[in-house]
Amino acid sequence: MLNQEIIRSIIVETPSKPGYFAKVATAIGEAGCHIGDIETIRNGTMSTVRNISVHCERAEQLDAVISTIRNLPEDVQIHAITDDVLRAHEGGKIEMKSRIDVRSLRDLQQIYTPGVASVCLDIQANPEKARYFTSIGNSVAIVTDGTAILGLGDIGPVAGMPVMEGKSVLFNQFVGISGIPILLDTSDPDTVVETVKHIHQGFGAILLEDIGSPHCFEIEERLKKELPIPVMHDDQHGTAVVTLAAVLSACRAANVDITQAKIGQIGLGAAGQAICRMMMAYGVEEVYGIDRQEAALERLRNYGGKTLASLEEVMSTCDIIIATTGVSGLIKPELVRPGQIILALSNPNPEITPDDAIQAGAAFAADGRMVNNAIGFPGIFRGALNAGAKEITYPMLVAAATAISDYTRAGELIPNPLDPNVHVVVARAVELAAQND
Amino acid sequence: MLNQEIIRSIIVETPSKPGYFAKVATAIGEAGCHIGDIETIRNGTMSTVRNISVHCERAEQLDAVISTIRNLPEDVQIHAITDDVLRAHEGGKIEMKSRIDVRSLRDLQQIYTPGVASVCLDIQANPEKARYFTSIGNSVAIVTDGTAILGLGDIGPVAGMPVMEGKSVLFNQFVGISGIPILLDTSDPDTVVETVKHIHQGFGAILLEDIGSPHCFEIEERLKKELPIPVMHDDQHGTAVVTLAAVLSACRAANVDITQAKIGQIGLGAAGQAICRMMMAYGVEEVYGIDRQEAALERLRNYGGKTLASLEEVMSTCDIIIATTGVSGLIKPELVRPGQIILALSNPNPEITPDDAIQAGAAFAADGRMVNNAIGFPGIFRGALNAGAKEITYPMLVAAATAISDYTRAGELIPNPLDPNVHVVVARAVELAAQND
Repeated sequence: MLNQEIIRSIIVETPSKPGYFAKVATAIGEAGCHIGDIETIRNGTMSTVRNISVHCERAEQLDAVISTIRNLPEDVQIHAITDDVLRAHEGGKIEMKSRIDVRSLRDLQQIYTPGVASVCLDIQANPEKARYFTSIGNSVAIVTDGTAILGLGDIGPVAGMPVMEGKSVLFNQFVGISGIPILLDTSDPDTVVETVKHIHQGFGAILLEDIGSPHCFEIEERLKKELPIPVMHDDQHGTAVVTLAAVLSACRAANVDITQAKIGQIGLGAAGQAICRMMMAYGVEEVYGIDRQEAALERLRNYGGKTLASLEEVMSTCDIIIATTGVSGLIKPELVRPGQIILALSNPNPEITPDDAIQAGAAFAADGRMVNNAIGFPGIFRGALNAGAKEITYPMLVAAATAISDYTRAGELIPNPLDPNVHVVVARAVELAAQND
Repeated sequence: MLNQEIIRSIIVETPSKPGYFAKVATAIGEAGCHIGDIETIRNGTMSTVRNISVHCERAEQLDAVISTIRNLPEDVQIHAITDDVLRAHEGGKIEMKSRIDVRSLRDLQQIYTPGVASVCLDIQANPEKARYFTSIGNSVAIVTDGTAILGLGDIGPVAGMPVMEGKSVLFNQFVGISGIPILLDTSDPDTVVETVKHIHQGFGAILLEDIGSPHCFEIEERLKKELPIPVMHDDQHGTAVVTLAAVLSACRAANVDITQAKIGQIGLGAAGQAICRMMMAYGVEEVYGIDRQEAALERLRNYGGKTLASLEEVMSTCDIIIATTGVSGLIKPELVRPGQIILALSNPNPEITPDDAIQAGAAFAADGRMVNNAIGFPGIFRGALNAGAKEITYPMLVAAATAISDYTRAGELIPNPLDPNVHVVVARAVELAAQND
C-alpha cells in the first residue's frame, strides 16, 4: 500500500525572534505540503538553524515551498535542500556481517579451516544440528519477481530491491532475523517454484514479496505444499493479519461483534482474497467480495467466500467495508450506511477519505496510512522460526492478528511498529499457536 | 585443502611455581598434540589458571592428554574442557544486518514506505543506479552444491554451510563484502546454471565454492559466458592464485626464474587444472600435468598444457613440483631431484613432508598449511566489484598473485591473511588490472 511522496530536508536559518519560524511553516502549509520531523541544528542568540522534513505529493509543490521561503525577508535563508531518502539508501541498506571477530590465528582456525570441518561432520551426522550451528534457522529469504512493487506495479526486481532491503532492515531491527533478498528474473510459476526449491535449504523460511496477482496464488500454494519450511506471501497474509487486527480494534471502538457482522471486501487481488480468507478463518460467517474480474470472484467462491453483484449491493448489505482496489474515490459518500466501519486501504489515495466516511455516517473509518504491514511479518516469522514450524497456518495468523489488536491502545487502530515490544508479543502468540497446532 | 583436527580448550590451574606449567605442556607434547594459543585467565600468588588450546589428530590423543594431566600432582587441576569451535558456530557465524538505525517514524518512512518508492522509481529509470542505492554492487553469492566440501567430499550443502559462512565472515572482515550463502539441492549442470541465472540479479558477483570435479568446470564456464557479472570458482582460481603467489615467493628464495622453469602438476582435479592454466597465463611455457584419469589429461591438453606418462617422469623432468592429489606420501624421497621446488599441498597429510623433501635435496619445500586460500578470494572480489568488472580475467588473477607475492616478507611463502593491508593491496592490483583490460 503505497503513498507516493517526495520527501526533502530543508535546512533553514531564521532570526531567533518569535514569528519567523511560523512564516516558514506557513509557506510549507500554503503549498499543500506536510511537515515531518523538525530538528534544531543550532539555537543561537541571533539566529536558529533547523532541519525541516517536508513531504510533498508533486515536484511543483516543493518548488513553490522553496521559492516562497526564498522570498521571505532576507534574514531567512535556505542553506541546503537534501534528499535524505536517497542518502539513506547509499551503498544499500543491509550487509551480511560476521557475528564473530576474527583477530587471531586461533579465531581463523576455529571459524575456517581446519576447525570448521568438525562442525560440518557433526551436521552431516545430525542434520537437525544445522539449525543450531549455522545461520539457516534464523534466515528468511525475501523472494520477489518485481511484478507488484508497492503500488508501482511491474518495475522489475532490481528496481524493487530497496523494498526488499527495507523488509530486511525491519527483520533485523525488530526481531533479529537475517532477511536475504532473492531477486528472480522470471514470473513463470513453474520456474519460480523450481528455483526457490533448488535454493530453499539455505533458509529457515520463505517470504514471498510484491509478486503480482494472480500468479502469486499458484506460486505460494505450490511452495507451501512442496517445501518443508514456512512460506508466506506477505502481500496476502501479512496484510490480512494487520487488516484483521485493525478491524478487531475498530469493532471494539464501535462496539460491534465481528463474528456476527457482514464483511464486504471490495477488490479481490492478492490482499483482498487473503483478507476474506482471514476473516473466515477468524470465524466470520458472512464474508462478501466484489471485483471487476470474474476469475477473482470465482477464486473467492473456491475459498468459501460469497460474492455480490455490485458495489452498491456490498455497501447496502455489509456492516464492515474493506477496500483494496487502488481506485481513488471509488466509494461515494452517498453509498455509506450510518454505523458502518470502513477501511479504505488504497494508497496514496483511499477509496473514500476517513473524513468523508465519518461525515456520511460511518461509525469508524480509516485509510491505508493507518494500517502499516510492518507490524505483522516480523513477529509472524520470528514466532514460526522459534517454534520450528514447518508451515504458517491460519491459527498462527489469527493468533498474530489477535495479539496485535490486544496490544493496541484505546483510540488507535494498530500499535506503533517502532514499539519493540509489539513484535515480541506477536512472535510469542504465533509460537504458542504453532505449538498447539 | 583440509587439515582435520580436534581442537579443544583445556582450562588448567597449576601452582604459581616454576616447572608446573611445563609438566602440563609435556603431557600435551607426549601425546603427540600441538599447543595453540595459551591465555592466562588468572595469575594469582598461589596458583595460575590458563586456557590452553590443544590440537589433536585423533580422539585417543585428547583422552591421553587429559588423563596424563589428571594424574599429575593434585595441585594441578583441569577445570573445564570446552569445544570452542562448536561454540563459535552457535547460532551461525553470520547475519544480515541493517546499515541504518530505524528509531523514529521519519527513519521508517525513509527506508520503507512511502519514501522508498522514490528510490525504486529512480532505479527503474536508471538501472545502473542500483549499484549505488542498493546492496547489490557489494554482494557476492557464495554458491555450493555441497559435493566437495573441504577435503570431506560430498557431504551435502547443509553440512557444508559452516564453510560458506566462514567465507562470508572473511569477506566481511577482510574487505567489507556481503557474502550470501546459496545452498543448491542439485549438481546437474543445466539446473545449477539455470538456478543461478534466475537469481543472479541480486548479486554483484558469484563465488562458486566446493563444487566437485568435473561438473565444476562446465558450470563455471557456462555461468561466466552467460552472466554479465564476475563468476569465479574459488577452488580452481582462488587456489591457483595463492599457489602462483607461493611459487613466485619460493622461486625468489631459491633464485629460480619461473618463466624458464618446467612446472609439473601432479593431480588434475579442480585445483590442479586451474594451477596449470594460471602458470601458463603467467608466461610459463613448459607446464606438465599428470593424473590417473585420461579425461583429466585430455582436459589439460585442451587448455594448452602438456601431459607426461608417469609420476617418475614428472619428477625427473620438472624443476617445480606442485601436488594436489589428496594422496598422503605419494612422492617418495628418492624421486626428488636436488634443487627442486616442491609444494605438496594435500591436507591433512601432504604427498611429501617439507622435511623429507629438503632432506632429499629440494631447494624449497612447503605443504598445504602454508598456502591458505583466505589470502586470495577476498581481495580478488573486492577489486572486481570496485572496478565494476563484468568478469574476472587472467590478467586480474595474475595481478592478484603478483601483488600477494610482492607483499610477502622474505622467508615467508605468502603473507598472513590477518594482515588487513594485504587484502587492500590485492584489491587494488585486481582493480587496476580490470581497468587496463
